Amino acid sequence: MATQQIVLASRPKGTPTIANFRFENIELPEVQTGELLLQGMYYSVDPYMRGRMNDVKSYSPPFQIDNAIEGGVVAKVIESKSANFKAGDIVLGALPWRKQMVASEKAVQKIDTGIAPPSYYLGILGMPGLTAYFGLMDIGKPKAGETVVVSGAAGAVGVVVGQIAKIQGCRVIGIAGTDEKIALLKKDFSFDDAINYKTTSNLKAAIAALCPNGVDIYFDNVGGEVSDAVVANINFHARIPLCGQISLYNSTEQPVGPRLQPMLLTRSVLLQGFIISNFQSRFPEGVQHLAQWVKEGKLKFTETIVHGFDQLPTGLLGLFKGENTGKMIVEA
Amino acid sequence: MATQQIVLASRPKGTPTIANFRFENIELPEVQTGELLLQGMYYSVDPYMRGRMNDVKSYSPPFQIDNAIEGGVVAKVIESKSANFKAGDIVLGALPWRKQMVASEKAVQKIDTGIAPPSYYLGILGMPGLTAYFGLMDIGKPKAGETVVVSGAAGAVGVVVGQIAKIQGCRVIGIAGTDEKIALLKKDFSFDDAINYKTTSNLKAAIAALCPNGVDIYFDNVGGEVSDAVVANINFHARIPLCGQISLYNSTEQPVGPRLQPMLLTRSVLLQGFIISNFQSRFPEGVQHLAQWVKEGKLKFTETIVHGFDQLPTGLLGLFKGENTGKMIVEA
Repeated sequence: MATQQIVLASRPKGTPTIANFRFENIELPEVQTGELLLQGMYYSVDPYMRGRMNDVKSYSPPFQIDNAIEGGVVAKVIESKSANFKAGDIVLGALPWRKQMVASEKAVQKIDTGIAPPSYYLGILGMPGLTAYFGLMDIGKPKAGETVVVSGAAGAVGVVVGQIAKIQGCRVIGIAGTDEKIALLKKDFSFDDAINYKTTSNLKAAIAALCPNGVDIYFDNVGGEVSDAVVANINFHARIPLCGQISLYNSTEQPVGPRLQPMLLTRSVLLQGFIISNFQSRFPEGVQHLAQWVKEGKLKFTETIVHGFDQLPTGLLGLFKGENTGKMIVEA
Repeated sequence: MATQQIVLASRPKGTPTIANFRFENIELPEVQTGELLLQGMYYSVDPYMRGRMNDVKSYSPPFQIDNAIEGGVVAKVIESKSANFKAGDIVLGALPWRKQMVASEKAVQKIDTGIAPPSYYLGILGMPGLTAYFGLMDIGKPKAGETVVVSGAAGAVGVVVGQIAKIQGCRVIGIAGTDEKIALLKKDFSFDDAINYKTTSNLKAAIAALCPNGVDIYFDNVGGEVSDAVVANINFHARIPLCGQISLYNSTEQPVGPRLQPMLLTRSVLLQGFIISNFQSRFPEGVQHLAQWVKEGKLKFTETIVHGFDQLPTGLLGLFKGENTGKMIVEA
């Protein structure tokens, strides 16, 4: 059957543009034994995908020029030649950006839409939720009464980090880039306070004012000058789960900034870079906790949903402009 | 009795000079019950003392203007008004830079000169040896076959780190600043190879050439551009015990350099600042291992000894010019 796919047309220099993508009409192969024909429902767009657009060794292999972009997708089974799936099942997998696609049964897993709506498996019960859970709990090791600062606080990972930190009894300060996000963090996501870094002239002083006892955990999603301002307030024996550096992903030159090591040294600070696959063997534990908190109403979630398969490149580019609150998803 | 002391005359701006110190003749108080009169034998000069010359909150309190400098000292008991010490005992303590001094019995501990010469308690069996042991073993967690790079490799901590890493079955590359030190590291301290950073034009490439499998542990004593070159070669899941930043201690402005977080993030690297007092409860374990290895001839040590109490400031300043190999000590 005929379908449409989105391929990487060229590697971006700096901030990606629509011109780096190309839409193509293709013919899908016949479904073979052990395979499924899928209809894409929800496509995940995530900051880490920027790294895969470069031809650089990293934790995920680079996207290949003229090949379909690949990411987290929730899809419906249209036709099954596997005993484990039937038409109508809802599945999750790392799948190509195609309207319909043929995939091995091993590439997907069934999801339980009784627990949460399907798109949540790309968010709070998926990669961003697990990233928040393991990054905060295993690296941050929050203790009741400690102060936690989260950058990119209104993003898919940030809103979850803040709420889990509150569940652990911490004081939580978020940093985000619009007044709407700041209001939402305090009103809907139980942050104790939040700072708009774009309208705050002295971020270091603003953090100091809201963290009179210093910062015990800094969950870093953004890097750059925002992180410099937080680290300037870091406590002895603080922990920094290093989760994202979105402010630097589109840099065309080596980013330069103050050397942080003297501060990290004299204050005995831990900084740990991590990616979620480091915790793969413990995903069931993470999903169980997250689902329980969602069920108990302790953990809320929000999505920014863009409509239309053809809006996938635009949705991804929107991440770098801070257009999302919570998880950015494209609904086909 | 009359004696001489060395006080902090003024706080240095940038690199300290002799003018920041002042010699004074003082009269010691009478020895009271529970106190000892001590004769200074060996005075430790250490990189961390530079930080104490600034009026900045850190892990050790700042030295006070017009007060005696304080540091690790091995001394002989001349007169004891304590039941726990007798004249002739050799003791170790954090003591003022005075030729003779009166100290509480609680400020010092007896050392066993049967295991090693007295000055070794300021080096391999003291703070530098313990720093090497816990930093490498507890933070670095070396595994046989891994590659370890040590900066400041010919310093008091560095020579011990390299040898312990060899005992653990690692490949060990040292970085130091003179050809004499490079030769010594390879010949006397069993480093697999070593690099003179002052005469190497492309340090990143030189490290890559000697570390074909990348760097699994980077024991950082120096910071700055040397560390940038090592981190450019860092492996996935590497560990960086952050022990010293001597290249930056005399900076008068905020040091600036490439932002390392993107690399630490994508490679899941751990960076842990530490000071030796974090491990205080486990010092006996550390001393036991170090003493055993010294006894077995697996761990060698070297000292740069400067002679004369009046040479104490010069000895300390020499650290920042790289004048020491191994532990820098002033013998009164």
